[in-house]
Amino acid sequence: MLLYTCRTAPSPRRVRMFISEKGIDVPMQEVDLRSGEHFSADYRRRNPHATVPVLDLDDGTCISESDAICTYFEALYPDPPLMGSDPKSRARVRMWDRRVEFDGYQAVAEGFRNRAPAFRDRAVPGRHKVPQIEALAERGAQRYRDFLEDLDGRLGQSEYVALDTFSVTDITAFVTIEFARRALKIGPEPDQENIARWHAALSRRPTVEA
Amino acid sequence: MLLYTCRTAPSPRRVRMFISEKGIDVPMQEVDLRSGEHFSADYRRRNPHATVPVLDLDDGTCISESDAICTYFEALYPDPPLMGSDPKSRARVRMWDRRVEFDGYQAVAEGFRNRAPAFRDRAVPGRHKVPQIEALAERGAQRYRDFLEDLDGRLGQSEYVALDTFSVTDITAFVTIEFARRALKIGPEPDQENIARWHAALSRRPTVEA
Repeated sequence: MLLYTCRTAPSPRRVRMFISEKGIDVPMQEVDLRSGEHFSADYRRRNPHATVPVLDLDDGTCISESDAICTYFEALYPDPPLMGSDPKSRARVRMWDRRVEFDGYQAVAEGFRNRAPAFRDRAVPGRHKVPQIEALAERGAQRYRDFLEDLDGRLGQSEYVALDTFSVTDITAFVTIEFARRALKIGPEPDQENIARWHAALSRRPTVEA
Repeated sequence: MLLYTCRTAPSPRRVRMFISEKGIDVPMQEVDLRSGEHFSADYRRRNPHATVPVLDLDDGTCISESDAICTYFEALYPDPPLMGSDPKSRARVRMWDRRVEFDGYQAVAEGFRNRAPAFRDRAVPGRHKVPQIEALAERGAQRYRDFLEDLDGRLGQSEYVALDTFSVTDITAFVTIEFARRALKIGPEPDQENIARWHAALSRRPTVEA
C-alpha cells in the first residue's frame, strides 16, 4: 500500500489527518504538482483523473478522492469511528461533511483556482482543461464568508461540527479554514467565537501536524 | 418517518430510486419549490439550508442531502448493498459517486442554475443568495460534455459505473443524464455506445419510475 500525497495541497491533508487520528501507519510518496507530475503517464495509470491523493493497494487497485480513501480506512479500521457508528450518526456525518465540502471547501477552491496564474485552464481539478472565470473567484470568496457565518452558528449548537464527538467533518472544516487563510487570505471574523473555541480545541490535537 | 421530496427536482429522485431499489416503503410529502415552500419558516425548522430532500425521523432528527439519506437507509437496510459490501468496493463506490456528482451532476447544475430566470440570485442551492454567472453556465455545459466522454470510456471497461454490479453510482449517473436532457437539452452523443448500452439496461429497471 502506498499513498500518493502532496504537502502543499489541501485535499491530501484531509487523508493524512484521518490516518493520524486512526493511529495507523501508511507509507506515503510525495507528488510534485508544480512540475506537473500528476499529468505524467506513470501517474495517470494510477489515476486517469490526475488528482492527488491516490491510494495504491497491493492488488493494483487505485483509489482516488480523499473521501473515498477515508471510507476505505474507516471500513478496514473501524476504531475510533470517524464517520459515525450507527445509521443516524453516519447520516449526520455524511450530511455535514457534504455541507462543509460544497459550501466551504469548494467555495475556497473556486475563489483560488479561478484567479491564481498557476491554474490558468485548470480552474477545476481533473484531466480536462477548464478556463478561469474571474467573477467566480469573487463569488467563491463571498460564498466562503457565508459558510463561516453558518459554521459559527452550527458550532454554537454543537461541540464538534457533525456530532458531539470528533469526526471526519472536523477534519474537512479544519483543512478548509487553513486552505482559505493561505489561498484567499480570509479567516474567520474575530466575533465568530464558536469557530475560535472549536479551532483552538482542534489545534491541540497531534493530528494537525499531519 | 417522512421524506420531503419534489417530483420536478433531480436530487430527490436519487433518494426515491435508492428507496425503490431497496424495496422499502417510506411515506413521502411533496414540497412546492415553485411557490418557495422550502424557504418557509416551517420547512426551515427541518432544514435551515432550505433544500430538498429532507428525511424527518420519528425522534425529530432531520437529515438533508441525498447522499446522507441514502447512507442512512444503507446502514439500516444493508440488503441489497448499493454502496459496496467490503472496504475496497465501498471505497470504489464512493470514488465513482463523487466523480459523477462533481464532474457530471454539478456541471449540469452550473449550466442550468446560472442561466434559468427562476434561479436568479439562487445559482447555488442553499439559504444564501448567490448571483448567476453567464460564463459559468457555458463552462458547466462544456464540463458536462467532457463528463459524458469520460463516462463512456468508463462504461467501456465496466458493466456498471462503480462496480461490476449495480450501485448507487448508477442512480447518480442516470439522474444526472435525465437532468441534463431536460435542463440543458444535452444528451449523450450517438457514438457513445457504452452509455447507450448501460442506459438501456438501467431503463429496464422498475426503479426508473420512482
